[in-house]
Amino acid sequence: MTTLIPVSLSGGHAYDIHLGTDLLAGAGRAIAGVARSKRCVIISQPRISTLYAQPLTASLEAAGFTVLATINFPDGEEAKHLETLTNLSQALYALPEPLDRKTVVIALGGGVVGDVAGFLAAIYLRGLDFVQIPTTLLALVDSSVGGKTGVDLNAGKNLVGAFHQPRLVLADLSLLQTLPARDFLSGLAEVVKYGVIADPEILTFMAEKSGLILARDTDCLQHLVKRSCQIKAEVVVADEREENGTRAILNFGHTIGHALEGATNYARYLHGEAVAIGMVSACCIGEAAGVTPPVVRETLVALLQQLGLPIALPADKDDTTLMALTAQDKKAVAGQARFVLADALGHVKLQEGIAQTTALAGLQQQRRVYGESK
Amino acid sequence: MTTLIPVSLSGGHAYDIHLGTDLLAGAGRAIAGVARSKRCVIISQPRISTLYAQPLTASLEAAGFTVLATINFPDGEEAKHLETLTNLSQALYALPEPLDRKTVVIALGGGVVGDVAGFLAAIYLRGLDFVQIPTTLLALVDSSVGGKTGVDLNAGKNLVGAFHQPRLVLADLSLLQTLPARDFLSGLAEVVKYGVIADPEILTFMAEKSGLILARDTDCLQHLVKRSCQIKAEVVVADEREENGTRAILNFGHTIGHALEGATNYARYLHGEAVAIGMVSACCIGEAAGVTPPVVRETLVALLQQLGLPIALPADKDDTTLMALTAQDKKAVAGQARFVLADALGHVKLQEGIAQTTALAGLQQQRRVYGESK
Repeated sequence: MTTLIPVSLSGGHAYDIHLGTDLLAGAGRAIAGVARSKRCVIISQPRISTLYAQPLTASLEAAGFTVLATINFPDGEEAKHLETLTNLSQALYALPEPLDRKTVVIALGGGVVGDVAGFLAAIYLRGLDFVQIPTTLLALVDSSVGGKTGVDLNAGKNLVGAFHQPRLVLADLSLLQTLPARDFLSGLAEVVKYGVIADPEILTFMAEKSGLILARDTDCLQHLVKRSCQIKAEVVVADEREENGTRAILNFGHTIGHALEGATNYARYLHGEAVAIGMVSACCIGEAAGVTPPVVRETLVALLQQLGLPIALPADKDDTTLMALTAQDKKAVAGQARFVLADALGHVKLQEGIAQTTALAGLQQQRRVYGESK
Repeated sequence: MTTLIPVSLSGGHAYDIHLGTDLLAGAGRAIAGVARSKRCVIISQPRISTLYAQPLTASLEAAGFTVLATINFPDGEEAKHLETLTNLSQALYALPEPLDRKTVVIALGGGVVGDVAGFLAAIYLRGLDFVQIPTTLLALVDSSVGGKTGVDLNAGKNLVGAFHQPRLVLADLSLLQTLPARDFLSGLAEVVKYGVIADPEILTFMAEKSGLILARDTDCLQHLVKRSCQIKAEVVVADEREENGTRAILNFGHTIGHALEGATNYARYLHGEAVAIGMVSACCIGEAAGVTPPVVRETLVALLQQLGLPIALPADKDDTTLMALTAQDKKAVAGQARFVLADALGHVKLQEGIAQTTALAGLQQQRRVYGESK
């Protein structure tokens, strides 16, 4: 059964997430329902393309689409650069038939594919139509809602990009069965985040069903992905272009999380792993600031441990280093880190002007209580 | 006196063009009226920057702005590439203070600066605020309305970009006094275009006052720029993202114009020169198709000659070559060139399915009647 999750953006940007299992075979029909053209291109990476490009193409052709090309760019996060955009744009231009703005770009892959293909769709000919088929849990619950696309510069992550909303997200839980275990766990960290920021029921559910969830039971995943996407959609609809601060709550755990990723050159932690540790940091800092009740941290830590996600800061990156990196975060205002802190289980707020000493005290407490990782 | 020309776009994208003389000294105050931040960067090219960056900076500082940097990228059209975007983005990131989305990017220069700085403003941090100060006649009457930004790929012109509307356009006619003569004339060709597509009074006015216009009389220019921007604004408001075909009428003369530029590697003709010849082609093709009355061509040619703009096709690029290039135009649909043809003086329409033989007959006629250029 397919569940439709509406993302009710204004200005003609509203779209649905089609959530279910075994959706790939019906992808062509679903996309035909929203497309303005019967011509499309698939953008992917080799590993994913090998698994799913053929059945996707068959489904598209059965629905009357012409798949002009399947274009793969190199696997890995390193490909998320403007050079890849140049190469993909040249490849689109080299196709025998010229594209027009109604041509559908289909992103088949994880977060990197969604970010790159979405940005390509945003800028090629100043904007093509765009459909996302996320193949990782992280992409399903995070980047499939919100319209953020973009690439990295050597200087920093996601520094250039665009808001470009898809016409459809096909959230096929069956695709998660081929996901490496560590990537799957990393995605769960973002699901935990939705529980902490907006819905404690998610945390209870995850604690009760952790065995089934780790076994990728599709009913459990359906529930968790649905709630995650609904929460994110509510937040994004209230603040589509990140202008009124509402959207900032999605960054719970990300201030220290991004610093951890940066301090380790994006090589040590998967995004969700860094966010897991960063959520614990946010709790400790929140307690040091007198904002966060200890029950939030206790509930969070118990669940992260049950799932097998990390909670300890690394021994080789000291707190001063991490704090210096937070000030460079692109969401810092005038060089000051802003923290999203929980004031209750299921509720967070953006907190400006947390003193450096308070933040450092929180991180120190985290190391003291939860130890350090090598 | 400053004339305000409203560009009444929907969705919070409405802005005004401030048109007048000696506006640079008051630029800071005008920008303060629309900016959401007192921090800005100026993006320019060396030649223009030498002339105007200092007085602009003084005006901004007098209005309370902090000019974080003036960043020049190399002169010339060759700089209009994604590599320049990478370099400019890195330069923004390297500034001591991190930018936020309210930081104002001020484009000081001609069309290339507007396109590059506008695209930078569109994608850096997924969108900064943007103000344009055009310094060429072409940029004043063409790129200051419409929100098109973008860069070239090796494969073709303006292949990647974004629609990103400015918060203000400061159209200071005094800046045109330093414009090289050939660039000034090139801009006039686009003004002639507005006459042909929408307002024959422009053509009468230009014919009557050609001496004053060529002497860059500011009263004459004020009238012509105002009418040009008003016409373009009407068209753009009716079709902001080029979706319903209305905006296509702005391409009158551009189908063959672009082919001429492409056939000569963008080295022989300035844009307006190619458009001048291309407008004559559009008339000849329109006559061959039985759409365009000869009076349009006669009026147009007389005016172009009076102004000193070219009307003859080049001897060394044959019609088949030019027609092949039109099919590659990114606005071609499924490989077929579409022509914007005049059906009366002051009115044009998009015409699909002009037979190749008809188009060739028109071009042949143009060569027969107006000769060929070396």
